[in-house]
Amino acid sequence: MKFLIRLIPLFSFTFLCSATWSQDASVTIAEQLGYPRDAKLLIIHADDAGVSHAENIATIAAMEDGIVNSASIMVPCPWFPEIAAYASQHSEKDFGLHLTITSEWKNYKWPSASSKNEVKSLINPNGYFYPLVDSVVVNSNARDVEKEINAQIEKALKYGIDVTHLDAHMGAVMSTPEFLEAYIKKGREYRVPVLLTNDLPALEELKTRIQLTSKDIIVDHLYQASPETFKGGMEAFYEDLLNNLEPGLSCFLIHLAFENEEMKAVTIDHPDWGARWRQEDYDFFTSQKSRDLLEKNNIVLVTWREIRDKIVRAQ
Amino acid sequence: MKFLIRLIPLFSFTFLCSATWSQDASVTIAEQLGYPRDAKLLIIHADDAGVSHAENIATIAAMEDGIVNSASIMVPCPWFPEIAAYASQHSEKDFGLHLTITSEWKNYKWPSASSKNEVKSLINPNGYFYPLVDSVVVNSNARDVEKEINAQIEKALKYGIDVTHLDAHMGAVMSTPEFLEAYIKKGREYRVPVLLTNDLPALEELKTRIQLTSKDIIVDHLYQASPETFKGGMEAFYEDLLNNLEPGLSCFLIHLAFENEEMKAVTIDHPDWGARWRQEDYDFFTSQKSRDLLEKNNIVLVTWREIRDKIVRAQ
Repeated sequence: MKFLIRLIPLFSFTFLCSATWSQDASVTIAEQLGYPRDAKLLIIHADDAGVSHAENIATIAAMEDGIVNSASIMVPCPWFPEIAAYASQHSEKDFGLHLTITSEWKNYKWPSASSKNEVKSLINPNGYFYPLVDSVVVNSNARDVEKEINAQIEKALKYGIDVTHLDAHMGAVMSTPEFLEAYIKKGREYRVPVLLTNDLPALEELKTRIQLTSKDIIVDHLYQASPETFKGGMEAFYEDLLNNLEPGLSCFLIHLAFENEEMKAVTIDHPDWGARWRQEDYDFFTSQKSRDLLEKNNIVLVTWREIRDKIVRAQ
Repeated sequence: MKFLIRLIPLFSFTFLCSATWSQDASVTIAEQLGYPRDAKLLIIHADDAGVSHAENIATIAAMEDGIVNSASIMVPCPWFPEIAAYASQHSEKDFGLHLTITSEWKNYKWPSASSKNEVKSLINPNGYFYPLVDSVVVNSNARDVEKEINAQIEKALKYGIDVTHLDAHMGAVMSTPEFLEAYIKKGREYRVPVLLTNDLPALEELKTRIQLTSKDIIVDHLYQASPETFKGGMEAFYEDLLNNLEPGLSCFLIHLAFENEEMKAVTIDHPDWGARWRQEDYDFFTSQKSRDLLEKNNIVLVTWREIRDKIVRAQ
């Protein structure tokens, strides 16, 4: 493995965990889904749907024409209604919620899905979410985090989205054991898998307080590009990942948008996770090369919906 | 005058009032500003700044390179921080607030500046403003309208905007005598002119209850393009207006954006006041022809700031 992925607290909670993990070591997630124990299962997952129009149309295009097979939606964002309309009309597609309690861009902002005064600790003096996870950790409490997660789930359901999973924009709702507890609790309540990995720092502490079960899905290997890999070239990074994918359940977190005026303005002054980055993700995951690499490496694409229905909601 | 402008309740409150009006008929607005009584004064005013990035950059470009000399900002919109940063750094430019209590586009939405549960009557079941003025009139009360106007003004001031005037997105805050009263009241409280014309339907009824003074500025002639004039060609419409402008204080309400992917998506399924419309407004008001027409017709551009400082705030 040429590329190592670091924990990047600002925009991701990505890390590399090499050990395959399961609550019940005798039955792996692959086996619960009906695959051999040594199958290489992969979710190619687009974050940030709803954040902008450019993100929406690139995400949709990559799910229709590329190998992207799952995505998650930012409910509080201005373009949520656009992606919600698509998701509700395309129930064959795999959409979860990218739970969002930050508003990180410089000139383009959103507040909470809840009334702001009901989640006061999440709202900055300008009336938006805080931009950085650090500020959320310092200012916010788990009660407000849980309330806001609930509001986002309820709004998505109201719009007719068949929510297949939950995950965490910028890792914010996983950033403390208390927030993480609220996140896992809501997943259990709505009977949807929440993205977790065994190396998540807050999970270690939380495990001393709550008991995970075989219905709490721990992804074996979670990958996303970092500022270094972006500099080194996205195609080389993803090619290497696909050629060296290990058995178990892997998930790629990618970010898809077209590098147009809107997206350049949204991500202004922030080249990392910026418009070019997202265009390169789009280019790779809609390329023939990406398809060929899946085939060559016997990689099986699985969705969060399969995990939800065959494991989390199994009787 | 070839073009007649109708009352268009959906997107404007535009109408044509041909009689010059002043509370004190002996001193006109022109004279109060230091111009001859028969001067042709004009504010070329861009609505909707803040609604999108395309609107912001086109509005700024037309104020810097064209003849547009005033604009108003939609505080609750996602791109408000971008235009607020520009306005606060360019205090020589004339920016007011386009008070907004509707969210009219199909796939792109915003809620109130206030906490939603503090202005419940303004918020629809999806957590946004209602899309149409009719729905606002049916569902909302003046107490919430006043509270939201206040929140928008306070937020703009917090961002460092030197608010020169108030006006009304889609005419919503002028749509009933009670809303109009809140709007006029807030203008008086903050000592800024609010856009009014003498033909405003709600004003007739309101005049039976409140006394207007010479500091309540009534624009003599208010013009904006209509769907018919858009079909007939914007250039011909504006050329005719400029060639036939009457003495007194006139105001053109225009809408500036670039016809790009973002703006086409914002205004999808709504060609009127859509991306092409806004591009044509931009094209005309940055053309040499528009400058020449001002000069040829001895039209004097005045700003809301002049009106605010020389009349409303005069001792």
